[in-house]
Amino acid sequence: MANTRPETRSKVLRTAAALFRRQGYHGTGLNQLLSESKAPKGSLYFHFPGGKEQLAAEAVTLAAAELGAQMREALEHATDPATAIVTVGNLFAGQLAESGYRDGCPIATVAMETSGDNEQIRESCSNAYGAWLAGLTLRIHGWGVPQDEAAPLAELVLSGIQGALLLAKVQQDCTPIHQVTARLGTLVAASVRAA
Amino acid sequence: MANTRPETRSKVLRTAAALFRRQGYHGTGLNQLLSESKAPKGSLYFHFPGGKEQLAAEAVTLAAAELGAQMREALEHATDPATAIVTVGNLFAGQLAESGYRDGCPIATVAMETSGDNEQIRESCSNAYGAWLAGLTLRIHGWGVPQDEAAPLAELVLSGIQGALLLAKVQQDCTPIHQVTARLGTLVAASVRAA
Repeated sequence: MANTRPETRSKVLRTAAALFRRQGYHGTGLNQLLSESKAPKGSLYFHFPGGKEQLAAEAVTLAAAELGAQMREALEHATDPATAIVTVGNLFAGQLAESGYRDGCPIATVAMETSGDNEQIRESCSNAYGAWLAGLTLRIHGWGVPQDEAAPLAELVLSGIQGALLLAKVQQDCTPIHQVTARLGTLVAASVRAA
Repeated sequence: MANTRPETRSKVLRTAAALFRRQGYHGTGLNQLLSESKAPKGSLYFHFPGGKEQLAAEAVTLAAAELGAQMREALEHATDPATAIVTVGNLFAGQLAESGYRDGCPIATVAMETSGDNEQIRESCSNAYGAWLAGLTLRIHGWGVPQDEAAPLAELVLSGIQGALLLAKVQQDCTPIHQVTARLGTLVAASVRAA
């Protein structure tokens, strides 16, 4: 029987977000999702009539919004631009290391697996990265860098962090994240000084 | 009946490399692999007794070696360091666009999906990235940048390209690759001048 409570929807979605982040889209089966979220099968289709695709699209959106808020906080509370970028790197590195090098970016794995084939999930991933880019651009612009310079700089920073996170996950060592964000931080600080 | 010819092994491995690159590890089934490589089932286990895991580990190694050779050629034939980095970006961008935004990095998707769970595949991915990093470091060092500076610079370049490739795949637009490699190229050229 379907459990129609909103708490059940939320529980299923959070479990999905955690599993997709760790195992990817194709590596996560609905049976595992149901058993780990302790939800009856009917609830899944009641709350997510679009099935696994809808779940993945919403899970990416949820996870990206939460990590985006953590990034925003890290960026806002740092004492200077270079430290701010390093702190964002520490945020990703911390989650990766704490999970035994299993939890990389909550968007990336699903994005790479599905974006060629599934428009709904691709759009969700694209919007999620777009929101992260907009947040980074706003912060860099807030430090005084002109908008048309802040946007490509934010893109370089996000690309560098994403790539370093991938290398770190594969090497089971967070050094690439720390080294890459140290350099990107220096670069952003130089742009701020030059602005 | 098993087809024991080396050409069959090679055909299966090439098909696996193409499918894993496009669909990821979990999204690629052995039935599709057998049907697309036109190989009988027995051949698969004859040539790859370790099954799908062995296939993935070898497919990553093969694809990374081929793309690594293309990168090396691009880096060696460019007129200057900045152009060299842009040319590597063009190489990835070209393959991504030509495939209708399906073929990203031949290591990344499999790496993200499996590195937390499968040591054999993780090692293969880690070695593949290690070889790319070594090649880039050697090239940057060859332009006159001291070794201890060339290695982290190569790591930043590879991370930036990998992240930009992910953004480009998700956005179905190669602009992030071109913008990021233009900036990384300028950065590398400045290090070469300063050396």
